[in-house]
Amino acid sequence: MTAAVVIAVDAMSGDHGPVVTVPAALTALERHSQLEILLVGQPDVLHEHLDDLPARMQIVAATEVVAMDEPPAQALRGKRDSSMRNALELVRDGRAQACVSAGNTGALVAKSRYLLKMVDGIDRPAIASALPARGGKTCMLDLGANSDCSAQNLLQFAIMGSGLAQGVFGVEQPTVALLNIGSESIKGTSQIREADQLLRQTGLNYLGYIEGDGIMAGTANVVVTDGFTGNVALKTMEGACRELLSIVREEVQRGPLQRALSGLLGSGHSGLSRRFDPRRYNGASLLGLRGSVVKSHGGADELAFGYAIDEAILEAGGDLPQRIAQCVSQAAVTREAV
Amino acid sequence: MTAAVVIAVDAMSGDHGPVVTVPAALTALERHSQLEILLVGQPDVLHEHLDDLPARMQIVAATEVVAMDEPPAQALRGKRDSSMRNALELVRDGRAQACVSAGNTGALVAKSRYLLKMVDGIDRPAIASALPARGGKTCMLDLGANSDCSAQNLLQFAIMGSGLAQGVFGVEQPTVALLNIGSESIKGTSQIREADQLLRQTGLNYLGYIEGDGIMAGTANVVVTDGFTGNVALKTMEGACRELLSIVREEVQRGPLQRALSGLLGSGHSGLSRRFDPRRYNGASLLGLRGSVVKSHGGADELAFGYAIDEAILEAGGDLPQRIAQCVSQAAVTREAV
Repeated sequence: MTAAVVIAVDAMSGDHGPVVTVPAALTALERHSQLEILLVGQPDVLHEHLDDLPARMQIVAATEVVAMDEPPAQALRGKRDSSMRNALELVRDGRAQACVSAGNTGALVAKSRYLLKMVDGIDRPAIASALPARGGKTCMLDLGANSDCSAQNLLQFAIMGSGLAQGVFGVEQPTVALLNIGSESIKGTSQIREADQLLRQTGLNYLGYIEGDGIMAGTANVVVTDGFTGNVALKTMEGACRELLSIVREEVQRGPLQRALSGLLGSGHSGLSRRFDPRRYNGASLLGLRGSVVKSHGGADELAFGYAIDEAILEAGGDLPQRIAQCVSQAAVTREAV
Repeated sequence: MTAAVVIAVDAMSGDHGPVVTVPAALTALERHSQLEILLVGQPDVLHEHLDDLPARMQIVAATEVVAMDEPPAQALRGKRDSSMRNALELVRDGRAQACVSAGNTGALVAKSRYLLKMVDGIDRPAIASALPARGGKTCMLDLGANSDCSAQNLLQFAIMGSGLAQGVFGVEQPTVALLNIGSESIKGTSQIREADQLLRQTGLNYLGYIEGDGIMAGTANVVVTDGFTGNVALKTMEGACRELLSIVREEVQRGPLQRALSGLLGSGHSGLSRRFDPRRYNGASLLGLRGSVVKSHGGADELAFGYAIDEAILEAGGDLPQRIAQCVSQAAVTREAV
């Protein structure tokens, strides 16, 4: 990055809180010379985890913390001085270009929507993430913000995912596919079949249906699905990679392959354990808001939370809300023209 | 197996038809000395693929074939002399203990339901399969017969899956989990939350919610979900395993690891490529019917179709419809007692 980027970090949320977020923020400052961090939380607690306050870090006070199991509606009504809320307000007020939180997903989605407002033409925020795939990355959404989705929601996810792939991953004409259980037109739910019809009327680079095995095969740049299916697919994929690599690792430790394989599996740059480590793609984008919000996994460790900060930096440079607003109006024009 | 087992094989269906089904049936006869096969299809076509008719094989004539893309309703009304229908009739009439088909899933489900009828207390057939998991196998259902499922459907899937795990896999008190997007009680759709409540009132060994990464981790013996989510999760898992193993294989071919790794990855008994080869768990059970029907993947090759035949043999010995009927009445009793 060339110009300064200011990221607000919700330092109190997540399963581990400041134990993870503070060291991750300090390491991010070392990695990115133009980065400035607003560390949001209880100052006395945060100072316990900081020897000195670095030049490019400021503490922004918040007295409360949203609990990981707090119902979203309750978090929205109460907790008016929480680290999550104050981090979002820094984005709303233009003091930070993006924020990162490892907090309660439902509360983060509800508060983001309330404080930042939606881009025109987008009804609900969606959670998107770039997943490792053959030939690079596949962006999938929604990963859990919306369990029940209409055809219109799926259409909007496709538009937002396309904007993310363009703006953040630099793909010019991202290919978009709808996740389904077969390629025939009669397969899937009525919402999916209707979304398929809607998508054919847009100017998006729409490929049609894709099955679950197309995600990691890298068949499309953007895979669109409802938040329930997306979350299950994401976690199934993570589980499969973890189990398979752990079996390979056990086999290696048992036999004479140990040394030969350590490079392939190991923590080196091209090591498989590293390439398929879910921590390396931690940091999902909350799309559709008039501000950049990155959701870290609640159980993120320091390394994983650092990747979420990196994602916020990427988004801060991409002016994503405006790009999504453009994509919405372009898609609308194309549909009217049909 | 000790006593004779008669399996009806729909020899005409699937992407490849008799080219795959006939050699797979011949090999199955060699593997299982007590097996008898009724090969259902057009006799002249089948004879082209057979040098001699083995002693334990008979051809049962059927003049028609259900196309892979034929709408289920059309296949049900028409094609009254198809290989799929005639194979099912052999089960209905007690001439075969189970049948196998690699045909059109929708048509097979519709015809099975019409010809074999449902077990009392079960509304719809579900597709179940045993997937490779840590510590053994996990049985998952539904894998694609029902896209939209009520809480009652999910409850019935749990009962049927439990019966399958007991009767075919020999697990005494199978653990059952509901696939969801979090472990908190507020997560998921209303159908899932309601199914969770229903399952707590049964005598099943119910663990609660499981996330996608629990499938391959072997957290439960039986994983219950709707057919849309189940199909996506299954194919995502297969895709992840395939991509990961193909990357390992490419790395191996590039470097000096080639020989060292060939045993680990190779086609040997413990080779990973073999253990995670989807062909090895081909053959899904259509549960809830008053007869045993095994669905092979449409694109199955000879090896994969052979595994589907083996699955039919396993089920033929398990008296699954009766076991499921028992599970239904036990679950009903337990619920009334609560």
